[in-house]
Amino acid sequence: MIALRCEKEPELVRDHPEPVRKPGEALVRMRLAGVCDTDLQLARGYMGFSGVLGHEFVGEVLESDDAAWRGRRVVADINAGCGHCTDCVENRGHHCKTRTVLGILGRDGAMAERLTVPERCLVAVPNGVDDDRAVFAEPLAAALHVADDVPPGADRVVVLGDGKLGLLVARALVSADKRVFVVGHHEEKLAVARSAGAEAALERDIGRELDDAPAVVDATGSSSGLALALRLVRPRGTVILKTTVAGVTDVDLSPIVINELRVVGSRCGDLGMAIDALEAGRVDPTPLIVARFPLARADDALRRAAEPGTLKVLVDG
Amino acid sequence: MIALRCEKEPELVRDHPEPVRKPGEALVRMRLAGVCDTDLQLARGYMGFSGVLGHEFVGEVLESDDAAWRGRRVVADINAGCGHCTDCVENRGHHCKTRTVLGILGRDGAMAERLTVPERCLVAVPNGVDDDRAVFAEPLAAALHVADDVPPGADRVVVLGDGKLGLLVARALVSADKRVFVVGHHEEKLAVARSAGAEAALERDIGRELDDAPAVVDATGSSSGLALALRLVRPRGTVILKTTVAGVTDVDLSPIVINELRVVGSRCGDLGMAIDALEAGRVDPTPLIVARFPLARADDALRRAAEPGTLKVLVDG
Repeated sequence: MIALRCEKEPELVRDHPEPVRKPGEALVRMRLAGVCDTDLQLARGYMGFSGVLGHEFVGEVLESDDAAWRGRRVVADINAGCGHCTDCVENRGHHCKTRTVLGILGRDGAMAERLTVPERCLVAVPNGVDDDRAVFAEPLAAALHVADDVPPGADRVVVLGDGKLGLLVARALVSADKRVFVVGHHEEKLAVARSAGAEAALERDIGRELDDAPAVVDATGSSSGLALALRLVRPRGTVILKTTVAGVTDVDLSPIVINELRVVGSRCGDLGMAIDALEAGRVDPTPLIVARFPLARADDALRRAAEPGTLKVLVDG
Repeated sequence: MIALRCEKEPELVRDHPEPVRKPGEALVRMRLAGVCDTDLQLARGYMGFSGVLGHEFVGEVLESDDAAWRGRRVVADINAGCGHCTDCVENRGHHCKTRTVLGILGRDGAMAERLTVPERCLVAVPNGVDDDRAVFAEPLAAALHVADDVPPGADRVVVLGDGKLGLLVARALVSADKRVFVVGHHEEKLAVARSAGAEAALERDIGRELDDAPAVVDATGSSSGLALALRLVRPRGTVILKTTVAGVTDVDLSPIVINELRVVGSRCGDLGMAIDALEAGRVDPTPLIVARFPLARADDALRRAAEPGTLKVLVDG
C-alpha cells in the first residue's frame, strides 16, 4: 500500500506492507490526515523514529474485535499504553512507560492507506463533525488540555506563537472564556487568531502592555519563546510549555526562582472532549487549513508544511 | 562602624557610616549573622550589588517608632516592599516591584554593627529560641516554604544538594512528615542529613531506586541539578527549584513537556513560621554550624564559607 515512511529521511513508497491487526486492535482506513510540526521534526531525525509518519487523522474502521466499531468513523488517542499499569488504569496511559505512540514511537502512523490502532484508543466521530474538523481532534485535544493548567483566577492568557498549534491553543482558550492575546511573527496568521476572538500583535510591536500576564503559553517551538514567556509572566504566574524544543536550551532560568514561577509542560489531551467541542461548534479549526494533497503526494504535503509560515496541510486518504 | 561592604569586591571597613533610621524603620544592633551562598555570589558580582552584605541575622532593636519593639530580640523578613501595592497588601511584598532586599538589592545588610529594617518586617524572637537557632530564621523560612509546593499526595521527596540549603530543606521537609532522600557529594554532610531523619546517598552511588520520584527539590546551585531532577521526577511530578543559578542554563528541557512536569521556583518564606518551628523544636538547624568569626573578621568568615563543602559560618556582632 501507499505510505509515507520515515527511515533516515521521509520517503513515499507504494509497496509498504499491509498492517497486521493484533487482538484488541482495529484496522482503520485513513480518510484524512494532518501534518504536524512533530512530523517535520521526526523527519529530521527527532527521537530516531523509523516507520510510517502521521498521528493526526480521521478514518473508518474496517476490521475490529468489537463488531460495534466496524464501519464507524473514528479518531484515536495516539498513546497506546500497555493497558495494565497504574498510569493506564488511572489515567489514559499517556505516560505508560511501555507505550507506543502512533507515528512517533514504535508504531506506524496514519500517512498510509491503512493503519492499526488499539480499540481502546478509538473515539467515534458523530455525523455532525465532518472530516475537515475531525482531523483536528488530536491537536485540538492537546490545545484544550492547555486550559487545564491555566490557573482558575487567570483572566487573560498570552499565547506565544502564531503557528498552527498556537492558533489552535488560542481557539481552545477563547472557547474556555479566557481573554487571549496571541504574539507572533506573521500578520496574516495573527488575522486568523483575531477571527477566533483573540487579540493579537506582532512580537516586534509589543511594548509593556503584556507584562505581568497571569499565564503565558509557549507554543513557539523555539527556545526564545521560553525566554519571552519568563519575561512576560507575572510573579507567581504560570508558564505552560506546549512545544518540545529538542536539545539543549540556552535560557536564563533564574526568573523561575526569583519570581517563584510555575512552569508546566503540556502534551496530549482527551480526544473525546475535542470531538465534543467540535460537535458543539465551540471551536472551528478549519480556517487553519491552507493546502491538501492526495496520499500519493504525501511527500509533497510534508515539503509544503515545512515551508515557513504554513498552517495546516492535509492529506486525503 | 565595622561593616563588610561589597563594592567591586567584599572589603571589611571600620569607618562605614552609621545607618540613618527612616520613619517606620527600626535601628537594630546585629547580634549574630550567617553567611549564605547568595552572599558569595553577590561578592562575585551577582546582581551588581553595592553595599553592606548579609541578610541572615538576629539582632536587638535599639530605636523604633513603635516603642514596643525597643530592646526586643528580632529577626526580619529581608523583603522590604513599598507597603502599598497589591503584592504588599495581599501577600508579604516578596514580589513588590519597588522592594529593596536586605543585603541583596538596594539596602545595606546585616554584616555590620548596626542596620535599619522596616518595622513591618520584624519578627520577635521568643526567649526559648537562642541566637544560634534564630539566626537560621531566614533560610529556614525559605526551606519551610519549599513544602508549600510539594503536592499533598507526594509521599517522598528527593532533595538534590547536601549544602546548607539542601540540608535545611531536608530538615524542613522531615518536620512536615515527608520521607526525604538527600543526594549529595560529601559523605560527612550526608551524615548531617541522616541525623535529621532523612535518607541520603552520594550521587555517584544512586541507581534507579530514586526514579519516579513524585517531587524533587533542586538545591544544588548548579545547572546539573536541574538535569538530574528532570531525570528522577516521575511523569506529572513536581520539580522545585530552590537555588538561583545565575546566567544561561544548558539543560535539555524537553522532559518538561514530554512528561508534563511542573517546575516551580521557590524563594523566600514566612519568618514567623520559621520562628515557631524553632521554638517548638520541630527543626534544629544547629548541626549545620561549622565556624564562627567576630564581625571584625567577617571577611575571613566569607573566605571560610567559600571553601568547598563548608556548611554554615556565623559572624558574631
